[in-house]
Amino acid sequence: MRSKKINIKEKFLKFSEHWSPKVIAELNDYQFKLARIKGEFVWHKHDETDEVFIVIEGKMKIELREKMIELKEGEMYVVPKGTDHRPYAEDECKIMLVEPRGVVNTGGSISELTQDNDVWI
Amino acid sequence: MRSKKINIKEKFLKFSEHWSPKVIAELNDYQFKLARIKGEFVWHKHDETDEVFIVIEGKMKIELREKMIELKEGEMYVVPKGTDHRPYAEDECKIMLVEPRGVVNTGGSISELTQDNDVWI
Repeated sequence: MRSKKINIKEKFLKFSEHWSPKVIAELNDYQFKLARIKGEFVWHKHDETDEVFIVIEGKMKIELREKMIELKEGEMYVVPKGTDHRPYAEDECKIMLVEPRGVVNTGGSISELTQDNDVWI
Repeated sequence: MRSKKINIKEKFLKFSEHWSPKVIAELNDYQFKLARIKGEFVWHKHDETDEVFIVIEGKMKIELREKMIELKEGEMYVVPKGTDHRPYAEDECKIMLVEPRGVVNTGGSISELTQDNDVWI
């Protein structure tokens, strides 16, 4: 995978489900993942790592305990490790996540929203 | 820095020089850097790490010993560690790099093109 160029928007055509991150690239032991999100996710945190959100298309919010981060296309945010956060998108939003291999999408909050964390597209 | 949202295109307005990566965010010990590139860079490699190139605006090429990678806006490529590469852009191109903190832009090929590797904007 890593020896091919990757067209981010074309990769989004390969899946349609929400809240189900797909891996598109690896940088050492870090992964670049794409996700379509819509509606409200669960509150969760990642105790071992920061997490990068980059909006590729659309708008989203990241609710933190003390504030709300609003992101539009071309904007990014680093959720510091151990920070409770809840992603939200009123309309479908396409995002790219960057985080270490093995990070679970719901952090320590395992639920029906928890997805296999190493699905490549 | 890490608790603020980052608008990638607005960050590019903060500098104009070529081949001089600027840090905009950190994810654990990894950095997201922006660079304006134009013309031909030097052949170099990073023996300790992969390196991600993402084209934000424009077009670029990454010359490898055995092939040429052509990237346009919205495309990315992972140069595997230890791989000789030479970035090139005919017209100015805006890119985002992702790599561990401390990576030198010219790898092991120190020259007048070598830049301070931890300048934030």
